[in-house]
Amino acid sequence: MSLIFRPLFEKVSSTYTYLLADSKSKEAIIIDAVHETKQRDIGLIEELGLTLKYIIETHVHADHITSSCPLKKKFSDAKIVLGEGNPVACADILIKDGDNLTFGKYKITAMSTPGHTDGCVSYVIGDKVFTGDALLIRSCGRCDFQGGSADKLFDSIQHLFTLADETAIYPAHDYGGRTVSSIWEEKAFNEMIGGGVDRAEFVSRVNAMDLSLPAKIHVAVPANQVCGANIISNG
Amino acid sequence: MSLIFRPLFEKVSSTYTYLLADSKSKEAIIIDAVHETKQRDIGLIEELGLTLKYIIETHVHADHITSSCPLKKKFSDAKIVLGEGNPVACADILIKDGDNLTFGKYKITAMSTPGHTDGCVSYVIGDKVFTGDALLIRSCGRCDFQGGSADKLFDSIQHLFTLADETAIYPAHDYGGRTVSSIWEEKAFNEMIGGGVDRAEFVSRVNAMDLSLPAKIHVAVPANQVCGANIISNG
Repeated sequence: MSLIFRPLFEKVSSTYTYLLADSKSKEAIIIDAVHETKQRDIGLIEELGLTLKYIIETHVHADHITSSCPLKKKFSDAKIVLGEGNPVACADILIKDGDNLTFGKYKITAMSTPGHTDGCVSYVIGDKVFTGDALLIRSCGRCDFQGGSADKLFDSIQHLFTLADETAIYPAHDYGGRTVSSIWEEKAFNEMIGGGVDRAEFVSRVNAMDLSLPAKIHVAVPANQVCGANIISNG
Repeated sequence: MSLIFRPLFEKVSSTYTYLLADSKSKEAIIIDAVHETKQRDIGLIEELGLTLKYIIETHVHADHITSSCPLKKKFSDAKIVLGEGNPVACADILIKDGDNLTFGKYKITAMSTPGHTDGCVSYVIGDKVFTGDALLIRSCGRCDFQGGSADKLFDSIQHLFTLADETAIYPAHDYGGRTVSSIWEEKAFNEMIGGGVDRAEFVSRVNAMDLSLPAKIHVAVPANQVCGANIISNG
Protein backbone atom coordinates (compact mmCIF):
# COMPACT_ATOMS: atom_id res chain seq x y z
CA MET A 1 0.00 0.00 0.00
CA SER A 2 1.40 3.34 -0.94
CA LEU A 3 0.82 6.96 -1.80
CA ILE A 4 -1.21 7.68 -4.92
CA PHE A 5 0.31 10.82 -6.40
CA ARG A 6 -1.11 12.50 -9.50
CA PRO A 7 0.31 15.77 -10.77
CA LEU A 8 -2.19 17.34 -13.20
CA PHE A 9 -1.68 20.29 -15.52
CA GLU A 10 -3.92 23.11 -16.79
CA LYS A 11 -2.43 24.48 -19.97
CA VAL A 12 -3.90 27.98 -20.22
CA SER A 13 -2.59 29.22 -16.86
CA SER A 14 0.21 26.59 -16.68
CA THR A 15 -1.12 25.55 -13.27
CA TYR A 16 -0.32 22.27 -11.53
CA THR A 17 -3.04 20.58 -9.51
CA TYR A 18 -1.95 17.72 -7.25
CA LEU A 19 -4.12 14.81 -6.21
CA LEU A 20 -2.74 12.65 -3.40
CA ALA A 21 -4.34 9.67 -1.71
CA ASP A 22 -3.67 6.72 0.52
CA SER A 23 -4.06 3.71 -1.77
CA LYS A 24 -5.42 1.62 1.13
CA SER A 25 -7.90 3.90 2.93
CA LYS A 26 -8.62 5.84 -0.31
CA GLU A 27 -8.70 9.12 1.59
CA ALA A 28 -7.50 11.92 -0.68
CA ILE A 29 -6.49 15.56 -0.81
CA ILE A 30 -6.30 17.91 -3.78
CA ILE A 31 -4.05 20.96 -3.97
CA ASP A 32 -4.77 23.98 -6.21
CA ALA A 33 -7.62 22.60 -8.31
CA VAL A 34 -8.62 24.73 -11.31
CA HIS A 35 -12.11 25.61 -12.56
CA GLU A 36 -11.44 24.67 -16.19
CA THR A 37 -10.27 21.16 -15.34
CA LYS A 38 -12.76 20.26 -12.64
CA GLN A 39 -14.55 17.60 -14.70
CA ARG A 40 -11.22 15.86 -15.34
CA ASP A 41 -10.41 15.97 -11.63
CA ILE A 42 -13.88 14.82 -10.50
CA GLY A 43 -13.71 11.97 -13.01
CA LEU A 44 -10.31 10.86 -11.76
CA ILE A 45 -11.36 10.98 -8.10
CA GLU A 46 -14.40 8.87 -8.94
CA GLU A 47 -12.52 6.37 -11.11
CA LEU A 48 -9.86 5.86 -8.44
CA GLY A 49 -12.61 5.36 -5.85
CA LEU A 50 -11.26 8.10 -3.59
CA THR A 51 -12.88 9.93 -0.70
CA LEU A 52 -11.89 13.56 -0.97
CA LYS A 53 -11.07 14.83 2.51
CA TYR A 54 -9.34 18.17 1.97
CA ILE A 55 -9.45 20.70 -0.85
CA ILE A 56 -6.29 22.74 -0.28
CA GLU A 57 -5.31 26.08 -1.78
CA THR A 58 -1.71 27.22 -1.43
CA HIS A 59 -3.05 30.79 -1.75
CA VAL A 60 -5.73 32.99 -3.31
CA HIS A 61 -4.70 32.79 -6.95
CA ALA A 62 -4.79 35.77 -9.30
CA ASP A 63 -4.29 33.95 -12.59
CA HIS A 64 -6.97 31.27 -12.55
CA ILE A 65 -10.20 30.43 -10.79
CA THR A 66 -10.29 27.64 -8.26
CA SER A 67 -12.69 24.72 -8.41
CA SER A 68 -12.78 24.41 -4.60
CA CYS A 69 -16.45 25.22 -4.25
CA PRO A 70 -17.68 22.98 -7.09
CA LEU A 71 -15.51 20.16 -5.75
CA LYS A 72 -17.02 20.60 -2.31
CA LYS A 73 -20.50 20.61 -3.83
CA LYS A 74 -19.66 17.26 -5.47
CA PHE A 75 -17.79 15.75 -2.51
CA SER A 76 -19.72 17.27 0.37
CA ASP A 77 -17.64 15.84 3.22
CA ALA A 78 -14.48 17.54 1.96
CA LYS A 79 -13.14 20.58 3.80
CA ILE A 80 -11.69 23.62 2.03
CA VAL A 81 -8.33 24.66 3.49
CA LEU A 82 -6.62 28.04 3.14
CA GLY A 83 -3.90 29.79 5.12
CA GLU A 84 -4.94 31.95 8.07
CA GLY A 85 -5.16 35.64 7.30
CA ASN A 86 -6.54 35.13 3.82
CA PRO A 87 -9.56 37.36 3.14
CA VAL A 88 -11.87 34.47 2.31
CA ALA A 89 -15.29 33.61 3.62
CA CYS A 90 -15.46 30.10 2.20
CA ALA A 91 -12.69 28.15 3.92
CA ASP A 92 -13.62 25.44 6.40
CA ILE A 93 -10.12 25.43 7.86
CA LEU A 94 -7.76 28.41 8.13
CA ILE A 95 -4.45 26.65 8.57
CA LYS A 96 -1.33 27.99 10.23
CA ASP A 97 2.36 27.14 10.21
CA GLY A 98 3.03 23.70 11.67
CA ASP A 99 -0.57 22.45 11.50
CA ASN A 100 -1.05 18.93 10.15
CA LEU A 101 -3.75 17.37 8.03
CA THR A 102 -4.02 13.60 7.70
CA PHE A 103 -5.40 11.38 4.95
CA GLY A 104 -5.15 7.66 5.56
CA LYS A 105 -1.73 6.96 7.00
CA TYR A 106 -0.25 10.12 5.52
CA LYS A 107 0.31 13.50 7.14
CA ILE A 108 0.79 16.81 5.36
CA THR A 109 2.24 19.75 7.29
CA ALA A 110 1.58 23.42 6.60
CA MET A 111 4.57 25.75 6.29
CA SER A 112 3.67 29.42 6.19
CA THR A 113 5.52 30.97 3.22
CA PRO A 114 4.19 34.52 2.73
CA GLY A 115 5.62 36.92 0.18
CA HIS A 116 3.92 36.19 -3.14
CA THR A 117 0.72 36.90 -1.21
CA ASP A 118 0.48 37.42 2.50
CA GLY A 119 -1.49 34.22 3.03
CA CYS A 120 0.68 31.76 1.06
CA VAL A 121 1.19 28.33 2.58
CA SER A 122 3.47 25.51 1.40
CA TYR A 123 2.76 21.90 2.31
CA VAL A 124 5.29 19.22 3.23
CA ILE A 125 4.61 15.50 2.94
CA GLY A 126 7.55 13.14 3.41
CA ASP A 127 10.17 13.97 0.79
CA LYS A 128 7.90 16.32 -1.18
CA VAL A 129 7.01 19.98 -0.73
CA PHE A 130 4.21 21.80 -2.55
CA THR A 131 5.41 25.38 -2.75
CA GLY A 132 2.55 27.17 -4.51
CA ASP A 133 3.92 30.41 -5.97
CA ALA A 134 6.49 30.96 -3.23
CA LEU A 135 9.26 28.96 -4.84
CA LEU A 136 9.04 28.08 -8.51
CA ILE A 137 11.49 26.05 -10.59
CA ARG A 138 14.47 28.38 -11.14
CA SER A 139 12.19 31.30 -10.24
CA CYS A 140 9.76 32.58 -7.58
CA GLY A 141 6.39 34.27 -7.36
CA ARG A 142 5.94 38.00 -8.00
CA CYS A 143 5.25 40.19 -4.97
CA ASP A 144 3.40 43.20 -6.35
CA PHE A 145 -0.20 42.57 -5.24
CA GLN A 146 -2.36 40.90 -2.54
CA GLY A 147 -0.06 41.94 0.29
CA GLY A 148 3.00 40.65 -1.54
CA SER A 149 6.41 41.41 -0.06
CA ALA A 150 9.79 40.47 -1.51
CA ASP A 151 11.27 40.89 1.93
CA LYS A 152 8.88 38.29 3.40
CA LEU A 153 9.40 36.02 0.40
CA PHE A 154 13.16 36.02 1.01
CA ASP A 155 12.53 34.71 4.54
CA SER A 156 9.98 32.17 3.28
CA ILE A 157 12.38 30.75 0.72
CA GLN A 158 15.14 30.57 3.33
CA HIS A 159 12.63 28.64 5.45
CA LEU A 160 11.97 26.26 2.52
CA PHE A 161 15.74 25.90 2.09
CA THR A 162 15.92 24.36 5.59
CA LEU A 163 14.20 21.26 4.16
CA ALA A 164 16.44 18.34 3.21
CA ASP A 165 18.38 18.95 0.00
CA GLU A 166 16.77 15.97 -1.75
CA THR A 167 13.21 17.15 -1.03
CA ALA A 168 11.26 17.28 -4.30
CA ILE A 169 9.65 20.64 -5.09
CA TYR A 170 6.23 20.66 -6.75
CA PRO A 171 5.24 24.24 -7.59
CA ALA A 172 1.85 25.69 -8.53
CA HIS A 173 3.15 26.67 -11.97
CA ASP A 174 5.84 26.12 -14.49
CA TYR A 175 5.84 27.92 -17.78
CA GLY A 176 8.59 25.81 -19.38
CA GLY A 177 7.18 22.31 -18.99
CA ARG A 178 9.28 21.32 -15.98
CA THR A 179 7.32 19.30 -13.44
CA VAL A 180 9.58 18.95 -10.41
CA SER A 181 12.79 20.26 -8.90
CA SER A 182 14.61 19.75 -5.60
CA ILE A 183 15.76 21.95 -2.75
CA TRP A 184 19.46 21.54 -3.60
CA GLU A 185 18.88 22.53 -7.20
CA GLU A 186 17.02 25.69 -6.29
CA LYS A 187 19.67 26.59 -3.73
CA ALA A 188 22.22 26.25 -6.54
CA PHE A 189 20.44 27.35 -9.72
CA ASN A 190 17.35 29.42 -8.86
CA GLU A 191 17.71 32.55 -10.97
CA MET A 192 16.23 34.82 -8.29
CA ILE A 193 17.78 33.48 -5.10
CA GLY A 194 20.17 30.62 -5.95
CA GLY A 195 23.91 30.65 -5.37
CA GLY A 196 23.67 32.54 -2.08
CA VAL A 197 21.95 35.72 -3.31
CA ASP A 198 21.46 38.07 -0.33
CA ARG A 199 18.25 39.78 0.79
CA ALA A 200 18.97 43.16 -0.84
CA GLU A 201 19.84 41.61 -4.20
CA PHE A 202 16.79 39.31 -4.07
CA VAL A 203 14.43 42.21 -3.30
CA SER A 204 16.02 44.19 -6.11
CA ARG A 205 15.54 41.28 -8.56
CA VAL A 206 11.90 40.77 -7.52
CA ASN A 207 11.17 44.49 -7.85
CA ALA A 208 12.73 44.46 -11.33
CA MET A 209 10.41 41.68 -12.55
CA ASP A 210 8.35 44.17 -14.60
CA LEU A 211 5.37 41.94 -15.28
CA SER A 212 1.96 42.95 -16.51
CA LEU A 213 -0.99 42.05 -14.29
CA PRO A 214 -2.43 38.55 -14.82
CA ALA A 215 -5.18 38.78 -17.43
CA LYS A 216 -7.76 37.28 -15.08
CA ILE A 217 -6.81 39.06 -11.83
CA HIS A 218 -9.96 41.20 -11.54
CA VAL A 219 -12.14 38.14 -12.00
CA ALA A 220 -9.95 35.51 -10.34
CA VAL A 221 -9.20 37.17 -7.01
CA PRO A 222 -12.83 37.98 -6.09
CA ALA A 223 -13.92 34.56 -7.37
CA ASN A 224 -11.24 32.79 -5.36
CA GLN A 225 -12.12 34.74 -2.24
CA VAL A 226 -15.39 32.81 -2.33
CA CYS A 227 -13.66 29.60 -3.51
CA GLY A 228 -15.18 29.81 -6.97
CA ALA A 229 -18.75 29.70 -5.63
CA ASN A 230 -19.96 32.47 -7.96
CA ILE A 231 -18.74 30.90 -11.18
CA ILE A 232 -21.41 29.39 -13.38
CA SER A 233 -20.60 25.78 -14.09
CA ASN A 234 -19.24 24.91 -17.50
CA GLY A 235 -20.44 21.37 -17.16
CA MET B 1 21.08 6.88 -3.80
CA SER B 2 18.11 6.64 -6.05
CA LEU B 3 16.55 7.19 -9.45
CA ILE B 4 16.39 10.76 -10.70
CA PHE B 5 13.15 10.99 -12.66
CA ARG B 6 12.10 14.14 -14.49
CA PRO B 7 8.97 14.22 -16.63
CA LEU B 8 9.11 17.28 -18.91
CA PHE B 9 6.35 18.73 -21.08
CA GLU B 10 6.26 20.47 -24.46
CA LYS B 11 3.06 22.45 -24.69
CA VAL B 12 2.53 22.87 -28.44
CA SER B 13 2.48 19.15 -29.26
CA SER B 14 1.58 18.09 -25.67
CA THR B 15 4.61 15.80 -25.68
CA TYR B 16 6.23 14.33 -22.59
CA THR B 17 10.00 13.96 -22.52
CA TYR B 18 11.45 11.86 -19.71
CA LEU B 19 14.90 12.27 -18.22
CA LEU B 20 16.06 9.45 -15.95
CA ALA B 21 19.37 9.04 -14.19
CA ASP B 22 21.18 7.16 -11.48
CA SER B 23 21.78 9.74 -8.77
CA LYS B 24 25.06 8.06 -7.82
CA SER B 25 26.78 7.27 -11.12
CA LYS B 26 25.03 10.21 -12.86
CA GLU B 27 24.49 8.12 -16.00
CA ALA B 28 21.29 9.23 -17.70
CA ILE B 29 18.84 8.44 -20.47
CA ILE B 30 16.30 10.69 -22.18
CA ILE B 31 13.12 9.45 -23.85
CA ASP B 32 11.33 11.36 -26.64
CA ALA B 33 13.18 14.66 -26.49
CA VAL B 34 11.66 17.50 -28.55
CA HIS B 35 13.40 20.04 -30.79
CA GLU B 36 11.65 23.09 -29.29
CA THR B 37 12.69 22.27 -25.74
CA LYS B 38 16.24 21.10 -26.33
CA GLN B 39 17.87 24.06 -24.60
CA ARG B 40 15.79 23.37 -21.48
CA ASP B 41 16.80 19.72 -21.56
CA ILE B 42 20.50 20.40 -22.23
CA GLY B 43 20.49 22.93 -19.38
CA LEU B 44 18.91 20.46 -16.97
CA ILE B 45 21.33 17.66 -17.92
CA GLU B 46 24.26 20.03 -17.34
CA GLU B 47 22.93 21.45 -14.05
CA LEU B 48 22.30 17.96 -12.67
CA GLY B 49 25.81 16.95 -13.72
CA LEU B 50 24.57 13.99 -15.74
CA THR B 51 26.34 11.91 -18.38
CA LEU B 52 23.82 11.23 -21.13
CA LYS B 53 24.20 7.61 -22.21
CA TYR B 54 21.14 6.90 -24.34
CA ILE B 55 18.81 9.12 -26.36
CA ILE B 56 15.74 6.95 -26.80
CA GLU B 57 12.82 7.40 -29.17
CA THR B 58 9.69 5.35 -28.59
CA HIS B 59 8.98 5.76 -32.32
CA VAL B 60 9.38 8.04 -35.33
CA HIS B 61 7.02 10.84 -34.34
CA ALA B 62 4.70 12.57 -36.79
CA ASP B 63 3.63 15.51 -34.65
CA HIS B 64 6.90 17.00 -33.47
CA ILE B 65 10.58 16.99 -34.37
CA THR B 66 13.03 15.16 -32.17
CA SER B 67 16.13 16.74 -30.66
CA SER B 68 18.05 13.45 -30.79
CA CYS B 69 20.68 14.64 -33.21
CA PRO B 70 21.34 18.01 -31.52
CA LEU B 71 21.53 16.22 -28.15
CA LYS B 72 24.07 13.78 -29.56
CA LYS B 73 26.04 16.67 -30.99
CA LYS B 74 26.15 18.19 -27.49
CA PHE B 75 26.72 14.92 -25.59
CA SER B 76 28.85 13.04 -28.09
CA ASP B 77 29.17 9.77 -26.15
CA ALA B 78 25.38 9.27 -26.11
CA LYS B 79 23.83 6.64 -28.38
CA ILE B 80 20.57 7.18 -30.25
CA VAL B 81 18.16 4.26 -29.78
CA LEU B 82 15.17 3.36 -31.96
CA GLY B 83 13.19 0.18 -32.48
CA GLU B 84 14.39 -2.25 -35.15
CA GLY B 85 12.57 -1.97 -38.44
CA ASN B 86 12.28 1.81 -38.29
CA PRO B 87 13.31 3.45 -41.57
CA VAL B 88 15.99 5.60 -39.98
CA ALA B 89 19.62 6.07 -40.88
CA CYS B 90 20.66 7.86 -37.73
CA ALA B 91 20.18 5.35 -34.90
CA ASP B 92 23.22 3.92 -33.15
CA ILE B 93 21.18 1.07 -31.70
CA LEU B 94 18.17 -0.60 -33.30
CA ILE B 95 16.58 -2.23 -30.29
CA LYS B 96 14.32 -5.25 -30.21
CA ASP B 97 11.84 -6.78 -27.79
CA GLY B 98 13.51 -7.91 -24.57
CA ASP B 99 16.76 -6.00 -25.08
CA ASN B 100 18.10 -4.14 -22.05
CA LEU B 101 19.91 -0.85 -21.68
CA THR B 102 21.65 0.06 -18.44
CA PHE B 103 22.46 3.40 -16.82
CA GLY B 104 24.20 3.22 -13.47
CA LYS B 105 22.51 0.51 -11.44
CA TYR B 106 19.28 0.76 -13.44
CA LYS B 107 18.08 -1.36 -16.34
CA ILE B 108 15.44 -0.42 -18.87
CA THR B 109 13.88 -3.15 -21.01
CA ALA B 110 12.46 -2.72 -24.50
CA MET B 111 8.98 -4.09 -25.18
CA SER B 112 7.99 -4.09 -28.84
CA THR B 113 4.53 -2.48 -29.09
CA PRO B 114 3.76 -1.90 -32.78
CA GLY B 115 0.44 -0.60 -34.02
CA HIS B 116 0.58 3.19 -33.82
CA THR B 117 3.60 2.81 -36.08
CA ASP B 118 5.24 -0.44 -37.02
CA GLY B 119 8.42 0.38 -35.12
CA CYS B 120 6.95 1.48 -31.77
CA VAL B 121 8.77 0.36 -28.64
CA SER B 122 7.72 0.77 -24.99
CA TYR B 123 10.29 0.74 -22.21
CA VAL B 124 9.93 -0.84 -18.78
CA ILE B 125 11.97 0.19 -15.76
CA GLY B 126 10.96 -1.22 -12.37
CA ASP B 127 7.37 -0.16 -11.68
CA LYS B 128 7.21 2.28 -14.60
CA VAL B 129 6.46 1.81 -18.30
CA PHE B 130 7.00 4.42 -20.99
CA THR B 131 4.40 3.60 -23.61
CA GLY B 132 5.02 6.19 -26.32
CA ASP B 133 1.86 6.46 -28.43
CA ALA B 134 0.86 2.81 -28.02
CA LEU B 135 -1.12 3.27 -24.83
CA LEU B 136 -2.21 6.76 -23.80
CA ILE B 137 -4.15 7.76 -20.69
CA ARG B 138 -7.74 6.63 -21.36
CA SER B 139 -6.85 6.46 -25.08
CA CYS B 140 -4.34 5.03 -27.55
CA GLY B 141 -2.40 6.09 -30.60
CA ARG B 142 -3.98 6.37 -34.04
CA CYS B 143 -3.07 3.70 -36.60
CA ASP B 144 -3.58 5.35 -39.97
CA PHE B 145 -0.03 6.06 -41.16
CA GLN B 146 3.62 4.84 -40.91
CA GLY B 147 2.65 1.18 -41.05
CA GLY B 148 0.04 1.59 -38.36
CA SER B 149 -2.27 -1.33 -37.62
CA ALA B 150 -5.12 -1.42 -35.12
CA ASP B 151 -4.88 -5.19 -35.14
CA LYS B 152 -1.23 -5.10 -34.07
CA LEU B 153 -1.98 -2.36 -31.54
CA PHE B 154 -4.60 -4.57 -29.90
CA ASP B 155 -1.94 -7.25 -29.35
CA SER B 156 0.58 -4.67 -28.14
CA ILE B 157 -1.80 -3.28 -25.54
CA GLN B 158 -2.67 -6.80 -24.38
CA HIS B 159 1.08 -7.29 -24.02
CA LEU B 160 1.32 -4.10 -21.93
CA PHE B 161 -1.62 -5.33 -19.85
CA THR B 162 0.50 -8.31 -18.75
CA LEU B 163 2.56 -5.89 -16.64
CA ALA B 164 1.69 -5.67 -12.94
CA ASP B 165 -1.53 -3.75 -12.29
CA GLU B 166 0.22 -1.08 -10.23
CA THR B 167 2.79 -0.31 -12.95
CA ALA B 168 2.77 3.43 -13.63
CA ILE B 169 2.15 4.41 -17.25
CA TYR B 170 4.04 7.39 -18.66
CA PRO B 171 2.83 8.10 -22.21
CA ALA B 172 4.39 10.26 -24.94
CA HIS B 173 1.40 12.61 -24.89
CA ASP B 174 -1.59 13.71 -22.93
CA TYR B 175 -3.88 16.40 -24.22
CA GLY B 176 -5.78 16.87 -20.95
CA GLY B 177 -2.96 17.61 -18.52
CA ARG B 178 -2.77 14.15 -16.99
CA THR B 179 0.78 13.02 -16.32
CA VAL B 180 0.55 9.39 -15.28
CA SER B 181 -1.83 6.44 -15.14
CA SER B 182 -1.51 2.79 -14.19
CA ILE B 183 -2.08 -0.55 -15.87
CA TRP B 184 -5.15 -1.39 -13.77
CA GLU B 185 -6.78 1.95 -14.56
CA GLU B 186 -6.33 1.55 -18.29
CA LYS B 187 -7.62 -2.02 -18.12
CA ALA B 188 -10.70 -0.61 -16.41
CA PHE B 189 -11.26 2.85 -17.89
CA ASN B 190 -9.40 3.19 -21.19
CA GLU B 191 -12.01 4.49 -23.61
CA MET B 192 -10.67 2.47 -26.55
CA ILE B 193 -9.83 -0.87 -24.96
CA GLY B 194 -10.80 -0.79 -21.27
CA GLY B 195 -13.44 -2.98 -19.66
CA GLY B 196 -12.58 -6.02 -21.75
CA VAL B 197 -13.23 -4.61 -25.24
CA ASP B 198 -12.54 -7.34 -27.83
CA ARG B 199 -10.32 -7.13 -30.92
CA ALA B 200 -13.10 -6.44 -33.41
CA GLU B 201 -14.60 -3.66 -31.33
CA PHE B 202 -11.17 -2.13 -30.68
CA VAL B 203 -10.30 -2.14 -34.39
CA SER B 204 -13.66 -0.60 -35.16
CA ARG B 205 -13.12 2.15 -32.57
CA VAL B 206 -9.62 2.92 -33.85
CA ASN B 207 -10.84 3.05 -37.45
CA ALA B 208 -13.61 5.44 -36.39
CA MET B 209 -11.15 7.92 -34.87
CA ASP B 210 -11.59 10.31 -37.81
CA LEU B 211 -8.60 12.55 -37.11
CA SER B 212 -6.98 15.02 -39.43
CA LEU B 213 -3.29 14.48 -40.18
CA PRO B 214 -0.87 16.05 -37.68
CA ALA B 215 -0.02 19.56 -38.85
CA LYS B 216 3.71 18.82 -38.92
CA ILE B 217 3.64 15.30 -40.39
CA HIS B 218 5.26 16.15 -43.72
CA VAL B 219 8.10 17.93 -41.95
CA ALA B 220 8.32 15.83 -38.80
CA VAL B 221 8.53 12.33 -40.25
CA PRO B 222 11.39 13.02 -42.70
CA ALA B 223 13.16 15.10 -40.03
CA ASN B 224 12.79 12.35 -37.45
CA GLN B 225 14.01 9.72 -39.88
CA VAL B 226 17.36 11.50 -39.64
CA CYS B 227 16.91 12.19 -35.90
CA GLY B 228 16.41 15.91 -36.44
CA ALA B 229 19.83 16.33 -38.09
CA ASN B 230 18.49 18.56 -40.87
CA ILE B 231 16.78 21.09 -38.60
CA ILE B 232 18.49 24.43 -38.26
CA SER B 233 19.20 25.17 -34.61
CA ASN B 234 17.00 27.69 -32.90
CA GLY B 235 19.69 28.42 -30.35
